[in-house]
Amino acid sequence: METPTKSAQATAQPLTVDSVRALFDSVDAFLFDCDGVIWKGDKLIDGVTQTIDFLRFKGKKLVFVTNNSFRSRRQYAEKFRSLGITVSEDEIFSSSFAAAMYLRAKNFPPEKKVYVIGGEGILEELQLAGFTGIGGPEDGDKRVELKSNNLFEYDTSVGAVVVGLDPHINYYKLQYGTLCIRQNPGCLFIATNRDAVGHMTDLQEWPGAGCMVAAICGSTEREPVEVGKPSTFMMDFLLQKLSISSSRMCMVGDRLDTDILFGQNAGCKTLLVLSGVTSESNLLDTSNTIQPDYYSNQVSDILKLLGP
Amino acid sequence: METPTKSAQATAQPLTVDSVRALFDSVDAFLFDCDGVIWKGDKLIDGVTQTIDFLRFKGKKLVFVTNNSFRSRRQYAEKFRSLGITVSEDEIFSSSFAAAMYLRAKNFPPEKKVYVIGGEGILEELQLAGFTGIGGPEDGDKRVELKSNNLFEYDTSVGAVVVGLDPHINYYKLQYGTLCIRQNPGCLFIATNRDAVGHMTDLQEWPGAGCMVAAICGSTEREPVEVGKPSTFMMDFLLQKLSISSSRMCMVGDRLDTDILFGQNAGCKTLLVLSGVTSESNLLDTSNTIQPDYYSNQVSDILKLLGP
Repeated sequence: METPTKSAQATAQPLTVDSVRALFDSVDAFLFDCDGVIWKGDKLIDGVTQTIDFLRFKGKKLVFVTNNSFRSRRQYAEKFRSLGITVSEDEIFSSSFAAAMYLRAKNFPPEKKVYVIGGEGILEELQLAGFTGIGGPEDGDKRVELKSNNLFEYDTSVGAVVVGLDPHINYYKLQYGTLCIRQNPGCLFIATNRDAVGHMTDLQEWPGAGCMVAAICGSTEREPVEVGKPSTFMMDFLLQKLSISSSRMCMVGDRLDTDILFGQNAGCKTLLVLSGVTSESNLLDTSNTIQPDYYSNQVSDILKLLGP
Repeated sequence: METPTKSAQATAQPLTVDSVRALFDSVDAFLFDCDGVIWKGDKLIDGVTQTIDFLRFKGKKLVFVTNNSFRSRRQYAEKFRSLGITVSEDEIFSSSFAAAMYLRAKNFPPEKKVYVIGGEGILEELQLAGFTGIGGPEDGDKRVELKSNNLFEYDTSVGAVVVGLDPHINYYKLQYGTLCIRQNPGCLFIATNRDAVGHMTDLQEWPGAGCMVAAICGSTEREPVEVGKPSTFMMDFLLQKLSISSSRMCMVGDRLDTDILFGQNAGCKTLLVLSGVTSESNLLDTSNTIQPDYYSNQVSDILKLLGP
């Protein structure tokens, strides 16, 4: 099948002393994915701090765009701080934030409730945006008994179900979300993202939000609206905030089907780093149709190759 | 879109005094779905016992074909007994049994293990077929911590993952199944069935095996082999056992996309009953492309219309 975009036809170039200079000069902002790019689990990837300091010193704008909805922007800023990197909340665009912004963009009635399958971060972003989230962590230990006359009660004022990564997924939450989507008229079904797996720890990949989202698709026979990468929903906020054309931005990520596709969909330059889920052989495999502009081992190669 | 089969083009006929006689005379065996046909949750549907007794008295063979994998054939026979109906294990074809039979048909090496996301019934059928199942109910209370250096250990000798309805679904099981399918070379991914929802209790529908199966599809980016309805895998066993041509069988069920499709795929006559998940308006809706030969309110209409 022919892919129509220029980026997808060209083959990715390895980052070199020459190409990194061309990339560096052609962009004013770097958009970084976090998991597999900045850190793996709770461990910073080598050389990230120095690279970020260098890019700030050179006047580049930095943005962190993560599909991981488990934390709010505030909680992400804290995680950066705990790892020794200063990042402001304004520089962070998480899919938890995107879910709340989507509801605002749709003029979601504030008197309606939002049922959350996912982490505290989603509830916090909903609250900051003026919405009432229910569910989430507090439903993590709830159990159901499949007995006669056991009526599962749910809130008929729920007008949206937001599904993200949820390591405390259970049948109670699945039934709650399913009933709302199937029974409450007009109930929205929002996926923070659909990543199949992610580096929730540094040693392994684990089921991502794509797992919980698919579960709800399976029981509701509905498809969600996605607000995280590769959907370009977050780009509208970025463009407004940065006043930089997307062609003067470079998206740096470890995933072809979310990060690189997001960058390409938005018209950014793209750099794949091999420090996360994608290996060089995945990238160069003939079955792969998503080609970034550039690729390199890790973020710190930018610094190493441009080196002062 | 044109549907090529005769049954799908014709519109379902309501069961009448005339049509029930034609149906009754043209078949030697009745295949019944259970949930929504024989019972709802733990409650028998009105008139089922008398209808079954009548059909046996008239010399019809009876078979119970259920997608619900939560019980083994032995456990289903017990459930029938507890509801006052005598049914032998040989008359029951559950998707838990079908999963074990699929492994046997594929010459699955008995020294390999089978990881189960689902109920005790699957483990029991695996054991009866000479296979070693692990997981299932005993993993229902296991929790994981997403911490650095926390390596999730799993058995590399798992050669198949069977996924069915699991009201004790959790992240531990999702990660276990996902790792086996993604990491163990050649690992099979078997779905007992993909029903979106089911009458797990008499008052409500709940997420079905389709929910858990979709979750594993979401994290593994793989599609399973399905052994329950509408796949005709179980029909091979039925044909062998009954020595009746499928054209002399009538599949009775409450679901268009599993029961009626299963019957049609196998060349059986089909009767939809409206005592389960499908309403008359679902059936008659122009968007519905699956038309049974006949439909009626409930199984006991057969007796009422033929009545002695």
